[in-house]
Amino acid sequence: MKIYDRSGFPNPARIRIVLAAKGFDTAVEFVPVDLIAAEHKQDAFLAKNPSGVVPVLELDDGTLISESTAITEYFDNLDGDPILTGRTPKEKAVVHMMQRRAEAYVTDAIGLYFHHATPGLGASLKAYKSPEWDGRDAMGQREGEKVRAGMRYFNEILQSRPYLAGDDFSMADITLFAGLMHADVSGINVPADYAALLDWRARVSELPSVKNRTGQAFLQEDLTRLGF
Amino acid sequence: MKIYDRSGFPNPARIRIVLAAKGFDTAVEFVPVDLIAAEHKQDAFLAKNPSGVVPVLELDDGTLISESTAITEYFDNLDGDPILTGRTPKEKAVVHMMQRRAEAYVTDAIGLYFHHATPGLGASLKAYKSPEWDGRDAMGQREGEKVRAGMRYFNEILQSRPYLAGDDFSMADITLFAGLMHADVSGINVPADYAALLDWRARVSELPSVKNRTGQAFLQEDLTRLGF
Repeated sequence: MKIYDRSGFPNPARIRIVLAAKGFDTAVEFVPVDLIAAEHKQDAFLAKNPSGVVPVLELDDGTLISESTAITEYFDNLDGDPILTGRTPKEKAVVHMMQRRAEAYVTDAIGLYFHHATPGLGASLKAYKSPEWDGRDAMGQREGEKVRAGMRYFNEILQSRPYLAGDDFSMADITLFAGLMHADVSGINVPADYAALLDWRARVSELPSVKNRTGQAFLQEDLTRLGF
Repeated sequence: MKIYDRSGFPNPARIRIVLAAKGFDTAVEFVPVDLIAAEHKQDAFLAKNPSGVVPVLELDDGTLISESTAITEYFDNLDGDPILTGRTPKEKAVVHMMQRRAEAYVTDAIGLYFHHATPGLGASLKAYKSPEWDGRDAMGQREGEKVRAGMRYFNEILQSRPYLAGDDFSMADITLFAGLMHADVSGINVPADYAALLDWRARVSELPSVKNRTGQAFLQEDLTRLGF
């Protein structure tokens, strides 16, 4: 199996955590994609994923799987014990609901904010984003407000349960964790008085599947190219 | 079990098709939500679903499940035979990938277009949408273009397979079918030369779980209130 991605970036980090949690991290070959040069917006990559985003999983039979939730479903069910996506119908429902909220409230919103309200990944990629939207207007600020409201919501939720979907770490936590990584880079920090959210984040950071596994191989190189 | 929704609308239609396909359509009580009066944006409903959208499933133990994919996971797994979300790891992955594409390319995009580039559901609801975005600008038109590009993509896909995820009808087909219902209402029609997509749509329309089941109870009343 191959995974086309870029280590150090949020959605690749989601799948690297899944692989570590499921014990498949040595079963895949990683193929780096140059996001700053907009390699993922060129025809060769678009043939693998018409959405033009990483990561993409290529199975040994050639099947191409994109979307983090879909790749997570694959690995989580491969050993017959879906610890990350729920074992019972009710667990599956709650995990998928909270995962989608983490995605909509934080992870997707910070992606839009990063690419439109900050310099994002630089000039090469800018051409593939909505050129009429520079993010300094009300639309860009609205995405930032959405992220802040999402942090407030998850801080409340985590006051009464250890993880987003209940007692167990799940795909929903992975999505939010990656979204907060991206929020840090984009300059929207978790407020210091969001104790429950900060405590959850500290606990997730220390999980064996998360600690030192989110992948930083290309991040410093990419940040240097971008002039940080 | 209760489902809070409004018959005749796209996301409620998704779940009504799921219930019919799984044989649970008489197992739930439907509670109508007045979308035109923005009932789903008021505190009582937001306590059930902070995202402020229908449908919401309430289990007999009081658990609230929102997001169409999460509700689908619940019912599809309840009898131990997930025909709509995939039985094997690879099937689950392909269904979730194609479902997310149907949502992103068509269903979500037409929702944004409908609420911002058309009169949408009228004045009461307008206050809860991005007020600075009137949809007549490049952003609104971009959502319409995204829908048209999505139709083109799915027409291509369906030239080589009967359903979005392969040989079997799945959650991905349900999402796209509901999105195209919404596109009709919004004035973006499937082009007449998209033969594969139109053929797929005709076949899906005739499935026992879809035919006469998508729910029209409130639609004519709501359209009259909106002045259509």
